[in-house]
Amino acid sequence: MPDPAGTTSATGLLAAIADVGVDRRRGGYSRHGFDRVELALREWFVAEATRRGLDVRTDRNGNLWAWWGTPGPDAVVTGSHLDSVPGGGAFDGPLGVVSALAAVDLLRAKGFTPTRPLAVVVFAEEEGGRFGVPCLGSRLLAGTLDPDAARRLADPDGVTLAEAVADAGLDPARLGRDDEALGLAGRFVELHVEQGRGLVDLGAPVGLASSILAHGRWRFRFTGEGNHAGATLLGDRRDPMLPASATVLAARRAASHVDGARATVGRLVPNPGGTNVVASTVDVWLDARSGDDAGTRAVVGEITAQALSAAADEGCEVAVTEESYGDTVHFDPGLRDELAGVLGDVPVLATGAGHDAGILAARVPTAMLFVRNPTGVSHAPAEFAEAADCAAGVVALAAVLERLAG
Amino acid sequence: MPDPAGTTSATGLLAAIADVGVDRRRGGYSRHGFDRVELALREWFVAEATRRGLDVRTDRNGNLWAWWGTPGPDAVVTGSHLDSVPGGGAFDGPLGVVSALAAVDLLRAKGFTPTRPLAVVVFAEEEGGRFGVPCLGSRLLAGTLDPDAARRLADPDGVTLAEAVADAGLDPARLGRDDEALGLAGRFVELHVEQGRGLVDLGAPVGLASSILAHGRWRFRFTGEGNHAGATLLGDRRDPMLPASATVLAARRAASHVDGARATVGRLVPNPGGTNVVASTVDVWLDARSGDDAGTRAVVGEITAQALSAAADEGCEVAVTEESYGDTVHFDPGLRDELAGVLGDVPVLATGAGHDAGILAARVPTAMLFVRNPTGVSHAPAEFAEAADCAAGVVALAAVLERLAG
Repeated sequence: MPDPAGTTSATGLLAAIADVGVDRRRGGYSRHGFDRVELALREWFVAEATRRGLDVRTDRNGNLWAWWGTPGPDAVVTGSHLDSVPGGGAFDGPLGVVSALAAVDLLRAKGFTPTRPLAVVVFAEEEGGRFGVPCLGSRLLAGTLDPDAARRLADPDGVTLAEAVADAGLDPARLGRDDEALGLAGRFVELHVEQGRGLVDLGAPVGLASSILAHGRWRFRFTGEGNHAGATLLGDRRDPMLPASATVLAARRAASHVDGARATVGRLVPNPGGTNVVASTVDVWLDARSGDDAGTRAVVGEITAQALSAAADEGCEVAVTEESYGDTVHFDPGLRDELAGVLGDVPVLATGAGHDAGILAARVPTAMLFVRNPTGVSHAPAEFAEAADCAAGVVALAAVLERLAG
Repeated sequence: MPDPAGTTSATGLLAAIADVGVDRRRGGYSRHGFDRVELALREWFVAEATRRGLDVRTDRNGNLWAWWGTPGPDAVVTGSHLDSVPGGGAFDGPLGVVSALAAVDLLRAKGFTPTRPLAVVVFAEEEGGRFGVPCLGSRLLAGTLDPDAARRLADPDGVTLAEAVADAGLDPARLGRDDEALGLAGRFVELHVEQGRGLVDLGAPVGLASSILAHGRWRFRFTGEGNHAGATLLGDRRDPMLPASATVLAARRAASHVDGARATVGRLVPNPGGTNVVASTVDVWLDARSGDDAGTRAVVGEITAQALSAAADEGCEVAVTEESYGDTVHFDPGLRDELAGVLGDVPVLATGAGHDAGILAARVPTAMLFVRNPTGVSHAPAEFAEAADCAAGVVALAAVLERLAG
């Protein structure tokens, strides 16, 4: 689909940042909140927004707001995030940001002037890839994350969030609920690449979201006794790798007992991590989700029971910490119906993925647009969306913004 | 036990390097072959040896030889290594080096002059903590590791051994079997902290080694499909963490089926390693040992079969690479009897740990002295030996060197 004269395309904008944050070891991109790479992407966004005459402001939590028109109440807000998971794809996050910029271009090219203020937002550290808590910027903004706890969050190198935001020029003391910023948002719409095959199966380039699974993250720290892998008899061992591994297997089993649930261990770190060393501790991060709170809690409960039992069998200890949790999100039905009226008969899909939109939904009528993903793969280098589908996403987003801000 | 005038103590020398390579994240020490820390320890060793009038030479593989007397054939060689496992203890390796220096001091203080050349040796990268192959320096020296394969070994940051040795001022083209250096060694004696509770149980500060278990390292690379931890249905997953975890559990089971065997996974790395990401690959390093080749091979065979089966169940692939292997080592009985004659009725112990002495034993009559470890813990920050036992080790080593070089 050719772009109208004078506008940019989402894929053209993505191409401009294709070299930023490439992870040669893992493949894909590693772009994490307030790191060198994400700060470079923010600078790029500020330049792109400024070039369009948008007025960019940074809120107290490091989220960027690029305003078309004077910032004010009942604004129409759209956007997403620029950070990635470790070794992630090019679309998860950035597609929503560049599509918002391209939609602004498209609306201007057709002579549209918003009667309500319109803002393009970039949320900080949506993936939690550095500090462990997903939707960090939107949670702080909305007041669903304690700022004291947030300031103490540390990345794997021991750098705290307080230090990282200070290095980025923010005042860590001002992190936290920001009603001045969020209070201006009258409606929020996030466009995102789909992270499943719903639209492929339905043959549709664009869809709307109905809900997000109840989901959270838990860290299991297993503690045993570090020792020599050759000299220590089996009977003398308290090896935390054993209950850690049993917990990985328990996660799959427990999820299979609850309809539609998922439980995943994608991050597991033995300490000290030597080949000829019985580990002294192992950290296991569990990502668990299901259609409702009760289901998710049941899955985590079963996994925790198995972890305790396996740890006891090996003479190890286990400490379980809930690092984040969010109940099921049902997006505003009125707004969704309004958008369906604009977009015609597009599919409406539930998603297993978390989003800043899921956080904002508790405070602001919120909707999401999905763009077709031909393989459904996400959080991996193979994540993809066709250029034509990205263009269809921009057209759909522009139509929505025109309706909401017109 | 007070030191005779004019000598240094092993514990005093260890105290001098106590701040070098402290690992604040893991605890203990991280000192790896040819890294900044190990190079600093080598410089310290060269200075200590030079201060004693020893003539220090570096062989083609980066091992250091400090000569008392003119280098020549039928030399008596003692020493160990200065590198550690990740987050290791203060004694494994350095105790053998500092005890050798202290024994030289002790022999000089009593007016001894060797009639055979005597050398204190420091072997490079004994733990394999950086390049994966244990006893790297002694294997290259003895010709039991192909130099082309060795040059290609890479550390976790992708730096090859060829690059690392070049940075350290060595010629990577000259790595490999070095008969000129090893040909001078007539006998080799390594002193080492014990890595078990044999001497504690027997109430003896010093013992002799009988044998080393047959042992090796294998890397299992499980490949599945990286994807989103929330959006990917259980039935759509090919998650390599599942067979990787099953393999950790299989290792313990398999080792329990062979008398005296040990099998350990202390290092496991999921890629990309994100909490909300189904991993695309997982690397699992297996350390397996038993009293003989057949037992070790049986353990690894059972684990491999389980890994293949678990991978197939999850639609994953697995590739198994043998990274190192060494058959059972029986130390020279004649030399051991000679040393037992010098030391009196000291215990003789088998060990599950690998050592440079185990590599040299194939080429040179070799013996080992062990110093009591009150807890048996090794390869961990809690590794320890009492000062009095360290002093007893120096006295024993000095007596052995006096006999062999006198």
